Amino acid sequence: MSTDVSGIPEAAETIRYRHADDVWSAAVDLLDQTLLPETLSRLICETPGQLHDAIRRLVVRGAPAIGIAAAYGVTLTRVDSRADAAAVRSRYLETIDYLATSRPTAVNLFWALDRMKAVVQSVEDAELEMLPNRLADEAIRIHEDDRAMCRSIGINGAPLLQGCQNVLTHCNAGGLATSTLGTALAPIYHLHENGTTLHVYADETRPLLQGARLTAWELSQAGIPVTVCTDSMAGGLMKAGNVDAVIVGADRIAANGDAANKIGTYPLAILAHYHHIPFYVAAPTNTFDMALASGDLIPIEQRDPAEVTQPGGPSGRTTVPASAKVTNPAFDVTPAELITAIITERGVIQTPNQANVAEVLNA
Amino acid sequence: MSTDVSGIPEAAETIRYRHADDVWSAAVDLLDQTLLPETLSRLICETPGQLHDAIRRLVVRGAPAIGIAAAYGVTLTRVDSRADAAAVRSRYLETIDYLATSRPTAVNLFWALDRMKAVVQSVEDAELEMLPNRLADEAIRIHEDDRAMCRSIGINGAPLLQGCQNVLTHCNAGGLATSTLGTALAPIYHLHENGTTLHVYADETRPLLQGARLTAWELSQAGIPVTVCTDSMAGGLMKAGNVDAVIVGADRIAANGDAANKIGTYPLAILAHYHHIPFYVAAPTNTFDMALASGDLIPIEQRDPAEVTQPGGPSGRTTVPASAKVTNPAFDVTPAELITAIITERGVIQTPNQANVAEVLNA
Repeated sequence: MSTDVSGIPEAAETIRYRHADDVWSAAVDLLDQTLLPETLSRLICETPGQLHDAIRRLVVRGAPAIGIAAAYGVTLTRVDSRADAAAVRSRYLETIDYLATSRPTAVNLFWALDRMKAVVQSVEDAELEMLPNRLADEAIRIHEDDRAMCRSIGINGAPLLQGCQNVLTHCNAGGLATSTLGTALAPIYHLHENGTTLHVYADETRPLLQGARLTAWELSQAGIPVTVCTDSMAGGLMKAGNVDAVIVGADRIAANGDAANKIGTYPLAILAHYHHIPFYVAAPTNTFDMALASGDLIPIEQRDPAEVTQPGGPSGRTTVPASAKVTNPAFDVTPAELITAIITERGVIQTPNQANVAEVLNA
Repeated sequence: MSTDVSGIPEAAETIRYRHADDVWSAAVDLLDQTLLPETLSRLICETPGQLHDAIRRLVVRGAPAIGIAAAYGVTLTRVDSRADAAAVRSRYLETIDYLATSRPTAVNLFWALDRMKAVVQSVEDAELEMLPNRLADEAIRIHEDDRAMCRSIGINGAPLLQGCQNVLTHCNAGGLATSTLGTALAPIYHLHENGTTLHVYADETRPLLQGARLTAWELSQAGIPVTVCTDSMAGGLMKAGNVDAVIVGADRIAANGDAANKIGTYPLAILAHYHHIPFYVAAPTNTFDMALASGDLIPIEQRDPAEVTQPGGPSGRTTVPASAKVTNPAFDVTPAELITAIITERGVIQTPNQANVAEVLNA
């Protein structure tokens, strides 16, 4: 199977779009990430409802990938050909509002949907028949922009990891979470392309094991050595001197640099701080929510307790007695003071705080 | 089902001993903890080999419980009735050496086997026919001593948790890990008996989920409210002010107070330190290995990678691709400086260090 540098076989691209002049034939073709690493299977979404469900169930996940998928999802809106201009526009806006309810934390979702909304709102009544194609063009542009952002994050982040031998990451912020190279994994792929191969520790990332299932899979595909550990092992690995840097992605970053990411990221930042190990967040600038002054304001998704109680999936054993309660927040917030630097496509924000974030974002 | 205060139904006692004048009929009757919480099932061990396997497979686990089980295991030695005194003694010593290989980290195992060895070595040739009964008596005494130790740890630890509302624990250091009340859970049971019921957060404790499967089960049985979280959620709970104290058990404690316990304990201690939350270790004094100056010398068991790669158990899905490596240390070591106090049956060791440990142990 041929692969690109991200390690993901071309046949297993995270998101593909089946564009069609006849909008009724458009489709969003997703790699079903819930079935990895055992099964490479694709899910074809032909309606916004199917796409909403795919995002909610984490068939497609990762903040940038959710944004891309949702943008394509808008193009799946079916409009009655006899409807007037106002009705057409409101039909698309309904889809946008609906897709925005699929997951609450990743801001890239809202960013991408806002771009689609601007297209809906800017088209003239006289040009309304062009709207489906304009929306498809915009979604494709969002997808292509993401490829360029991943590439730039890789280039910008690589110098920070130069000289490291072992890097630890949490969850999956790789090619499977984006269009291609990922965010946190982009500098690792970039170094690998240029002859320096790091060894990666992948936290398995309970409850849904994206580190074990996805990060370990895509890094292995690219020929990058990876060792999976449970989330509880990272501290011991750091103490033993086995971790030179930690690098993770982000789902939303506040104006002061506080970063929401997969549950377990915040404790990892504290462990890195305690062991004097640099802790990097890699994310495109569309992950920043400049309307939020601090991370305390980021909404945190609570997910189904079954994700915790059935660690082997719905068909596996139930490991929590019914008499116990379960908590299942999907994200936590790492305060900026625990982050050594945030790597974006526009540059590296050292010692993140409001001024340093603004400087890079406004550059 | 009638229960004792530990929450464990009497029908589900951790370890029972079937004593018999005819040594060929003796048996160690274990609750099979690998099947909890779904199934209450017992495993009868009639040979040292069966018991060794039960310890290795974690049918019985928890440092004190392993010691008790192994002591009983010595009584399962089958000796040829025509053997001479030297042969009889060496047969028992072989069993003792063999059982000592079942698991490497918990020192209570070696402590209990040393007590059994002393019985083998002290019996006179003329009294050799009394040896089986003397060994059974010693094992029963070890079991009874453990009950008393749990009770005293509960009494000694309760004042430290007085005033707390939410306590977090890791793995299972409850009745299932000991004879009855446990170590880390003993103060919680003691307070509950006396009218103060705390709410407990139970880390699920990957890879084998003893927190989800065992701690949540036994606390629920006792009517103590418990919420299960993944190991990666403890930091966020602390940040939100939801954890007033952390209390865990130990498998081996060095002379300076460094404590080996289930993997994930060390990062928890760092998180507690960062959030200014007290971090308590509760363990009987037989958990101390005064021959080791520091925790760096404690051997750490590496277990089967399948425990990590199959989170739902051997019949469930494999979540790590075969191309990735896996690490699976069963324990980590928490340095004394991160431990607020060690609670023993002889008293509380505040600010553990060599002098403070010696003071309580020699009291």
